[in-house]
Amino acid sequence: MTSASRVTALALAALLTLSAAGPGARAADLNPVKQAAVAAVDNHRDELIALSNQIWAYAETALQEKRSSRALADYATAQGFVVQSGVADLPTAFVASYGTGHPIIGILGEYDALPGISQKAQPVQEPLVAGGAGHGCGHNLFGAGSIGAAVAIKELIASGRLRGTIRFYGTPAEEAVGGKIYMARAGLFSDLDAMLAWHPSDKPQADVTGSQALVDFIVEFKGRAAHAAADPWNGRSAVDGLELFTHGLNMLREHVKPTVRMHYVIQEAGIVPNVVPDRAKLWCWVRDKDRPGVEAVLQRLRDIAAGSALMAGVEAQVTIQGGDWELLVNRPGARLLQENMALLGDLPFTAEEQEFAKAIQKATGVAEVGLVTRLRPIEEQVFEGGSTDVGDISWLVPTLHLSVTTAPYEAPWHAWPVVACGGMSIGHKGLVYAAKTLAATMTDLFTRPDVLAGIQAEFRSQSQGVTWKPYIPDGPPPIPAP
Amino acid sequence: MTSASRVTALALAALLTLSAAGPGARAADLNPVKQAAVAAVDNHRDELIALSNQIWAYAETALQEKRSSRALADYATAQGFVVQSGVADLPTAFVASYGTGHPIIGILGEYDALPGISQKAQPVQEPLVAGGAGHGCGHNLFGAGSIGAAVAIKELIASGRLRGTIRFYGTPAEEAVGGKIYMARAGLFSDLDAMLAWHPSDKPQADVTGSQALVDFIVEFKGRAAHAAADPWNGRSAVDGLELFTHGLNMLREHVKPTVRMHYVIQEAGIVPNVVPDRAKLWCWVRDKDRPGVEAVLQRLRDIAAGSALMAGVEAQVTIQGGDWELLVNRPGARLLQENMALLGDLPFTAEEQEFAKAIQKATGVAEVGLVTRLRPIEEQVFEGGSTDVGDISWLVPTLHLSVTTAPYEAPWHAWPVVACGGMSIGHKGLVYAAKTLAATMTDLFTRPDVLAGIQAEFRSQSQGVTWKPYIPDGPPPIPAP
Amino acid sequence: MTSASRVTALALAALLTLSAAGPGARAADLNPVKQAAVAAVDNHRDELIALSNQIWAYAETALQEKRSSRALADYATAQGFVVQSGVADLPTAFVASYGTGHPIIGILGEYDALPGISQKAQPVQEPLVAGGAGHGCGHNLFGAGSIGAAVAIKELIASGRLRGTIRFYGTPAEEAVGGKIYMARAGLFSDLDAMLAWHPSDKPQADVTGSQALVDFIVEFKGRAAHAAADPWNGRSAVDGLELFTHGLNMLREHVKPTVRMHYVIQEAGIVPNVVPDRAKLWCWVRDKDRPGVEAVLQRLRDIAAGSALMAGVEAQVTIQGGDWELLVNRPGARLLQENMALLGDLPFTAEEQEFAKAIQKATGVAEVGLVTRLRPIEEQVFEGGSTDVGDISWLVPTLHLSVTTAPYEAPWHAWPVVACGGMSIGHKGLVYAAKTLAATMTDLFTRPDVLAGIQAEFRSQSQGVTWKPYIPDGPPPIPAP
Amino acid sequence: MTSASRVTALALAALLTLSAAGPGARAADLNPVKQAAVAAVDNHRDELIALSNQIWAYAETALQEKRSSRALADYATAQGFVVQSGVADLPTAFVASYGTGHPIIGILGEYDALPGISQKAQPVQEPLVAGGAGHGCGHNLFGAGSIGAAVAIKELIASGRLRGTIRFYGTPAEEAVGGKIYMARAGLFSDLDAMLAWHPSDKPQADVTGSQALVDFIVEFKGRAAHAAADPWNGRSAVDGLELFTHGLNMLREHVKPTVRMHYVIQEAGIVPNVVPDRAKLWCWVRDKDRPGVEAVLQRLRDIAAGSALMAGVEAQVTIQGGDWELLVNRPGARLLQENMALLGDLPFTAEEQEFAKAIQKATGVAEVGLVTRLRPIEEQVFEGGSTDVGDISWLVPTLHLSVTTAPYEAPWHAWPVVACGGMSIGHKGLVYAAKTLAATMTDLFTRPDVLAGIQAEFRSQSQGVTWKPYIPDGPPPIPAP
Repeated sequence: MTSASRVTALALAALLTLSAAGPGARAADLNPVKQAAVAAVDNHRDELIALSNQIWAYAETALQEKRSSRALADYATAQGFVVQSGVADLPTAFVASYGTGHPIIGILGEYDALPGISQKAQPVQEPLVAGGAGHGCGHNLFGAGSIGAAVAIKELIASGRLRGTIRFYGTPAEEAVGGKIYMARAGLFSDLDAMLAWHPSDKPQADVTGSQALVDFIVEFKGRAAHAAADPWNGRSAVDGLELFTHGLNMLREHVKPTVRMHYVIQEAGIVPNVVPDRAKLWCWVRDKDRPGVEAVLQRLRDIAAGSALMAGVEAQVTIQGGDWELLVNRPGARLLQENMALLGDLPFTAEEQEFAKAIQKATGVAEVGLVTRLRPIEEQVFEGGSTDVGDISWLVPTLHLSVTTAPYEAPWHAWPVVACGGMSIGHKGLVYAAKTLAATMTDLFTRPDVLAGIQAEFRSQSQGVTWKPYIPDGPPPIPAP
Repeated sequence: MTSASRVTALALAALLTLSAAGPGARAADLNPVKQAAVAAVDNHRDELIALSNQIWAYAETALQEKRSSRALADYATAQGFVVQSGVADLPTAFVASYGTGHPIIGILGEYDALPGISQKAQPVQEPLVAGGAGHGCGHNLFGAGSIGAAVAIKELIASGRLRGTIRFYGTPAEEAVGGKIYMARAGLFSDLDAMLAWHPSDKPQADVTGSQALVDFIVEFKGRAAHAAADPWNGRSAVDGLELFTHGLNMLREHVKPTVRMHYVIQEAGIVPNVVPDRAKLWCWVRDKDRPGVEAVLQRLRDIAAGSALMAGVEAQVTIQGGDWELLVNRPGARLLQENMALLGDLPFTAEEQEFAKAIQKATGVAEVGLVTRLRPIEEQVFEGGSTDVGDISWLVPTLHLSVTTAPYEAPWHAWPVVACGGMSIGHKGLVYAAKTLAATMTDLFTRPDVLAGIQAEFRSQSQGVTWKPYIPDGPPPIPAP
Repeated sequence: MTSASRVTALALAALLTLSAAGPGARAADLNPVKQAAVAAVDNHRDELIALSNQIWAYAETALQEKRSSRALADYATAQGFVVQSGVADLPTAFVASYGTGHPIIGILGEYDALPGISQKAQPVQEPLVAGGAGHGCGHNLFGAGSIGAAVAIKELIASGRLRGTIRFYGTPAEEAVGGKIYMARAGLFSDLDAMLAWHPSDKPQADVTGSQALVDFIVEFKGRAAHAAADPWNGRSAVDGLELFTHGLNMLREHVKPTVRMHYVIQEAGIVPNVVPDRAKLWCWVRDKDRPGVEAVLQRLRDIAAGSALMAGVEAQVTIQGGDWELLVNRPGARLLQENMALLGDLPFTAEEQEFAKAIQKATGVAEVGLVTRLRPIEEQVFEGGSTDVGDISWLVPTLHLSVTTAPYEAPWHAWPVVACGGMSIGHKGLVYAAKTLAATMTDLFTRPDVLAGIQAEFRSQSQGVTWKPYIPDGPPPIPAP
Repeated sequence: MTSASRVTALALAALLTLSAAGPGARAADLNPVKQAAVAAVDNHRDELIALSNQIWAYAETALQEKRSSRALADYATAQGFVVQSGVADLPTAFVASYGTGHPIIGILGEYDALPGISQKAQPVQEPLVAGGAGHGCGHNLFGAGSIGAAVAIKELIASGRLRGTIRFYGTPAEEAVGGKIYMARAGLFSDLDAMLAWHPSDKPQADVTGSQALVDFIVEFKGRAAHAAADPWNGRSAVDGLELFTHGLNMLREHVKPTVRMHYVIQEAGIVPNVVPDRAKLWCWVRDKDRPGVEAVLQRLRDIAAGSALMAGVEAQVTIQGGDWELLVNRPGARLLQENMALLGDLPFTAEEQEFAKAIQKATGVAEVGLVTRLRPIEEQVFEGGSTDVGDISWLVPTLHLSVTTAPYEAPWHAWPVVACGGMSIGHKGLVYAAKTLAATMTDLFTRPDVLAGIQAEFRSQSQGVTWKPYIPDGPPPIPAP
């Protein structure tokens, strides 16, 4: 998921205070259990940053996260968790559990990177490994931060200050097939009382705007080959079909709601120029704020595929590969997160870190306002594009989701700036802040049954009548050959 | 029709001799009847040029040729022809007849101009009437030249030197609905023994390459209007459908034979920007060397219309408006024309006329080789794009067709250069040359029954098993309101 | 302007109460002056509805509103206003004034219709005049409602209960060149203390979301003609350029903010198919929430025009024709409007009117929830697409703007449903409600200097440093020839 | 090269006699040396077919033809030729020489396959190796047939019946970079007196229509990545540029001569949908009947690349990779080939082979007329699309080129039917026929100095003033890593 914000409505005045000194952590306001949770994160701080840096350097893409997954699972084992690896037929998924009985609180971690955006931890674009992958969505921080919170809670359970179960979910392939969806289908979340997750972002907030529903599909065209110079009239070009499809899709942009996003890449469109191509293939994602919106656009695109095939004299086939449900926002849960974030105060970025961020902002052509340190009020949030497989989970378990600054305000996401910041102190500070917020919030869930009950009641009310049905096809996940 | 030639295969060497002095008219080789026919044309030369200039100045477009048609019909009446006007429900069509009995030889004349290409008789582009029509296909010459030949034959019949009937057909709207097709449907050519026609061109030749079959149709799209800013997602844009259709058509160009031509204009595509357009309309012509070729492409375009409608969520309708059959070449007839052209020798353009032509060639970016004066051998002809409603007639009556230089070699047709030359001596010389060729050739048809029989046998052989069925819809021609 | 709302975020629960009985007019809460103002509107109710129906039947499009303008001006004259017609070189613009001295309060009226959407006052689509224009934006109601409010205030000034000046502005061509912009350039609003305006809509609210900035421009392509069959390779198709431009524009949709709207119609794209078109012309509007957004997109489209011309081997020219500034929202003003709307209570639609509305909703495929009767809280408003030349005025004078239900919720705007409702009781009730709200609000502006001062202070604060510069070209408005 | 013919002008009557029994080989007309040459081919027949089958089964694509090249080179060595491998920096190129002194006669052989069209030697489409390559242009026959002719001449030199040098050129990668061009640049053809080559085809003829000039280039687009859902407005899509480029190219098809061919494949267009692609890559070929034609289109496409980049806000780069010159026809040489083909008589296909061919024709939807056995007159040849790197050689050495039937008439080339026939007796008979024709013709070149001189004079006359300059970039050929 990305929370890369584009709060275009934000007044300039507000921006000017983004990096103003905040009120500071009000540690005195933390109750003793929270203090202990926060202290536990601090105790493991160096380990967590090392874990994050390790995964950052691995930069393994979806379903290839063998070393990243192993690093986190080994750390959990070393901390005393019971670890089950390879769950849900996913070699790089695992569940790490500690404690017994209810409440059972889950926390999510991700660790997959994105291809082609390798970058050094510096404010100038330069790949660490030419053509390599990079953590352009900050999942190295996500995984390490979440496990840090889990470890803090584990220690409180171990010391008897909390009762129940803490469970860390190592969830692979968020950027691709959505590991969580397979894990959900396998029933791995069925006994949870609540789930927590965070995501690297360009501002700190308890999220109430949700994420987009998404459907991921392939459009294939089959035509008839011919010699492109000698008898092109005998050919039926699959690429013609594909190009008409994209033209139709781009025209459709005028006729969808502003919350819709459609994007595609062309995966196959001819082998050699002198043959009229008989095969073409396009990979497409459609998103909207909710599934009905996605379904309506998908139906239009099915018509567009059929129409473009008819135009080119070829055949078209649409194959659904997967997708995400939109995130079901839990407002009581968000308010609880917000409270704990407020207690922790502003993010403590230094002047040097702000300069680093501004250099990136300058390089990428956005306003040079640096890093957002101060918690954003829930009321100021606006809709942003982005999807996550956390969405599916949110329809099965009450889910609390927050964002934490790990990158410069408005710098491009899924791009080198996020990789750069995720490999140095800016990302590390976000990681620690997230771990503390999550740990502190979990202490409330363990110790305040009324709060947990309110969160669960909200969940039941919002999800009533909806039966979760994942977008993924039947059968095991599409694990690539080793 | 255009015979605007693009003889790309022609060697440069050949081009360099285009304007070389030819062998000159071998008048001595003409038999006495032919000499008389040619002399008759010369006698009427000034009148014919005056008629041509009159029609050139009128520049009346298809089905609006009231004054042009009247001028020709009045001239025929004055010359002693029996004239029947308004035939085949076409107010600007007429038949002028003289003589009785067989052979009945027809000769075609056209006189419609093209919109928007008004031009003065000068080698620099400048409209005579801003935004006005112009004779960019030389039909002023065509009509006057043909009637000149008819008058010559009439005088030979009147003087008893020829026996039979000469019939001049005033045929409107060649550039649009094809007046000849309605005249054919009305049976006006059913008793003819042979038909002759010529066309202004950039070189003189007896045509053996035919013309293209053509289908003329409308594609209309109907969608759903909506406010383009407030709720474009509720609209289904007919213009989207239209744009996808043209994209599909342009892609189809790769997959048709090189003899195919497809061209279109957009007639309606929205009224005001703030409404998603619910109507759009495109006018399209498809041509190929023969009707089966045209039909195959038309079928593809029907699919493209249906597919584009499906893509845009709108409805499409294809309506055939008309079309031409390809010209059925009569090779014995062509050889007869060629013989007579050879007898007449080179076209007598002056150095000044050549300079005029070269100035146009310079202005239009083609090789400055001037005017082609020498008869082109039948063997050197190559396929050229272009259609004519003479094509339909050629499947009903043996038809002899020639081209005569009236414009600079390779200058753009349906454009100002042709208008310019058609209003001055270059066009006039072509007119006279055509009239003489046609008159001379007709004397053969009247006096050499074996030659006529050979032409008719060829016709029967080539057209065997084919039943002419015009592209025009049932009902009267679409005469515009006065 | 349209306020046709698409409040997609609105919960279903809220929709179900849209037509619930409201609290009713709390007339008792009105102070005596307001009571008199509201009563005055009621006194003129039948005249105002008659005026509206007259303009509805005229259905005159932009700058053609001679009879509509005359009807309103004559009514103002009859009511005792001093009327100045033909202001700002606009034959159909006028200013009607009454009273002297400050405060000078303006009120806007519009009366132009939209082409091609003629419709009877019935819930089934059927044109009143085939191909005719229709009031698809409800400007017949807008003009008559506003003048009703002005007359009410005039009577209070006349009776000495208010002091100052009331000024009604008859503003033509909102749907086209933007009459108000020419009037603003002529300085006609320079001495005003505040301006009021309303707009027909599908819900009642005091608007705080503004309108979109807009730029209106022409893109023309010039190529080289050629015979489309004989030598298309010598042609450079202006239509190719145009089609590439639209393709580029449609691709750009992915890369603009969700607040952007771009829409176009094709005005010229070839005359006859057999000529490669040398001219093509497109009319385009670009909108965004503010001018910088519009300017950024315009720059991209200039590049797209230049690029498409380069691709097609033709020339492109972009000519700005006009445009609107975004509406500068005056929140204190909006709150004042909201207060007065709250005093007036729900809109009193009958069960039959609700059925009429639902029939339209069924026919147009939107939720059959009928008409919105209850005032929408300011907080629930969301961004909607749409522009108005009121926007320009709002940067010169503090402007208060409200919306009133005159059409079914979510029915398509600029389309037959709005025409239908504007010609019957639904529209009439909206008209009267708007007139009352405006009259009541104006009494506050006349009688409560502090309120007016607060509104003016807000205006100065928001517009500080911005110099209004209209999009229209220099010179007089483009009045069509009579 | 392909000679896949589409002789659209061919009369139906002619087609009906395609498979009629021909006059048979007039062996008696062969002089003794020719008889010996033909007999030598027959002697090696089984070896040549085995060689062909071996290469057919290897099906190695361009620059990968290690085993194919080795098989031919080893065979040449075994026959007594001096073989030089890896010439011109091409690991799979070689020259096999025998004899000394002038005349030095070259003969060309090819052996590269095409990807993705693996096929069994049967008349039903079924891959031999799923996804594998196949000899869809018959180069297995080409290589083996040519070496057969070389061996026959070698034996005549060895036996003293001919004097001079025979040289077989093993030329790789005809379907890709054009191995011959690198060999030409390396000067390997500089001392030749004449060159011979043949090509598998669907009819036998001595070619006089030449081949198309071709330019092979890459268009790359570079944009700016962004998250496709969160901030697509910050992205500049390289794929947008690419799609506009192809749209422009497809529009350009209307405005090029009918002899032009343009075709492309898309090699890169995005990696994952959620990133706006910053790179895109297209591989394009442009052909025309000659280089000036190709250059003119290339210039348009450079503009189209620049324009599409401007439209999409990205950068475009065009990189020439290579290309072919058109084949310079040597008419005296063609007449010599024709004479020898006439002496050999019709191709001896059996009824079963004709049925095999007709089954393929049925499966591929072309007229079921079987295989063409009878020599086509030079006069009946028409222009066909296709290019070959033999073209470059033809501007350096007088080149004689013939086609021989190895596949069903009008069956699709570069497709499974050609693979199928090339692996069974149809192809083998063509191979033997070609070898005999080449051998017989070479005896004339060795023994009739006047004939050779005439061919050389024609060459000098046609190529005068033209300096060969290959399309390939400087530097060594792009050999793929092993």
